[in-house]
Amino acid sequence: MAPRVTVYEVGPRDGLQNEARAVPTAGKLALVRALAEAGLSRIEATSFVSPRWIPQLADAVGYVALVPNAKGLDRLQGALARAGADHPPVDAAVFLSASETHSRKNINRSIEEAFRELEALVPDARARGLRVRGYVSTVWGCPYEGRVDPLRAVAIVERLLALGCYQVSLGDTIGVATPNQTRLVLELLLRVARPEALALHMHDTRGTALANVLVGLEEGLSTFDASIGGLGGCPYAPGASGNLATEDLVYMLHGMGYETGVDLDRLVRAGELAERLVGRSLPGKTLQAERARGGTPAEAGSPA
Amino acid sequence: MAPRVTVYEVGPRDGLQNEARAVPTAGKLALVRALAEAGLSRIEATSFVSPRWIPQLADAVGYVALVPNAKGLDRLQGALARAGADHPPVDAAVFLSASETHSRKNINRSIEEAFRELEALVPDARARGLRVRGYVSTVWGCPYEGRVDPLRAVAIVERLLALGCYQVSLGDTIGVATPNQTRLVLELLLRVARPEALALHMHDTRGTALANVLVGLEEGLSTFDASIGGLGGCPYAPGASGNLATEDLVYMLHGMGYETGVDLDRLVRAGELAERLVGRSLPGKTLQAERARGGTPAEAGSPA
Repeated sequence: MAPRVTVYEVGPRDGLQNEARAVPTAGKLALVRALAEAGLSRIEATSFVSPRWIPQLADAVGYVALVPNAKGLDRLQGALARAGADHPPVDAAVFLSASETHSRKNINRSIEEAFRELEALVPDARARGLRVRGYVSTVWGCPYEGRVDPLRAVAIVERLLALGCYQVSLGDTIGVATPNQTRLVLELLLRVARPEALALHMHDTRGTALANVLVGLEEGLSTFDASIGGLGGCPYAPGASGNLATEDLVYMLHGMGYETGVDLDRLVRAGELAERLVGRSLPGKTLQAERARGGTPAEAGSPA
Repeated sequence: MAPRVTVYEVGPRDGLQNEARAVPTAGKLALVRALAEAGLSRIEATSFVSPRWIPQLADAVGYVALVPNAKGLDRLQGALARAGADHPPVDAAVFLSASETHSRKNINRSIEEAFRELEALVPDARARGLRVRGYVSTVWGCPYEGRVDPLRAVAIVERLLALGCYQVSLGDTIGVATPNQTRLVLELLLRVARPEALALHMHDTRGTALANVLVGLEEGLSTFDASIGGLGGCPYAPGASGNLATEDLVYMLHGMGYETGVDLDRLVRAGELAERLVGRSLPGKTLQAERARGGTPAEAGSPA
């Protein structure tokens, strides 16, 4: 049996939240549906799940909502309650930064202050029956501080797992990681965490995202975050790349013999929908290549 | 001492030859000069070296000219002779396809017919004092035939090395290779060739180029082809990516502690020159990221 990898889609949340042009709810729902129909089993849908959304979300998919604080958790729980018993599963996600300056600029709190909030929030969410995923940003570099000591991420991941997060996703927020740095961080982390408890959230700002994913696979990780078309994750300007494109990740994984459950052809069509919603071309390379070819996606080595 | 990697620049030849808009000779020379000043030590300059060019090429750099046939070799030798004794070293490069259909469509000859020509051409070039590099295209996939048997490349590389090529560069012409396929091809080839006799020429059409380069490094290779800004190498349409961008390759290599002799800041500026010459943005990610940041390039983990 082919080894299985979970592709964790962040586009509807991480991608659309960074768009200047607001995408209407119907469009967001259509994108989430297209992603679910492409076979993605984990979709981070929004930083707030509206009760009107939830019944419209496709079944057989796990959704995730970003929960910035206790108020966010209340809103999520309220939305789930109002949606009734039949809603698809929705997890909560919380976030921290490995860099002190980034933490203060991003959420106006020190890392320690953020932790004090999470020490109440994560157990509270779990007591309400929610699974909680943790994000650590700026693991490999900070836009303000530059290089970040890998041991910072180790300490933070240990605490998040001890609080009860089922998985922590390691973010290369500014896309500076290269493979040996990724290996160093993972080898330090794998002393304190099982590989299933870790995910990689790599940015492709300098083209290194898939090389870093390859290191993650070699180190035994099996969950990788990506965003349809490479939507979002770019703090700089249009044209530069942020998030790793889901299609590029799936293309590589399928070529390597991993099973993802994702249909690459449908995924490319979801990418084209995302482009229509935001009104511009997205940077994902497989998306661009397939559009240029005008055909169905080539799996590695298939007739083009 | 840091391990050394040779970045083999193909932009002025492979890149500019694919441009619809002809770039004037003065512009080509300015680009070659900018690339040499950035520290690149191997530059594939043209498929025909004009005698007027040669004295204007920077010293301390090895140039390469693509030689399609015996007539091309005569022209190259004539150009070198007319340039006098002081010209910088210029190697010859020859090419073959691993796919029968691609060979017939590309050069109107079967692989065997192409070999019969090279069996005269390569020894002839060596007798004239030229070093000869071989290219094998479509190693991982063919636009007409799809998947290509890795053993095809093995047989072709063995013959090219036996003819006297000092190195053979393995081309992923349509950018379909994924890391395990790259590893398979290299492990088969390393039974018949030393790692120094092999180079990788990966395309980034689906974002996998640097992941494949990482496999090459792990297998002991130390020469990688790339094109400034990702110029050229795209048989499809504008927007889609072809050649791996030199800046992205250098960014990853430096982040991994390899020494290349290349100044990334100057390289980005050479990429901006290439963009002005072709009159459009180029797909290289580091180039786009640095333009968006508006600053000097960040080495991995440096303050941004």
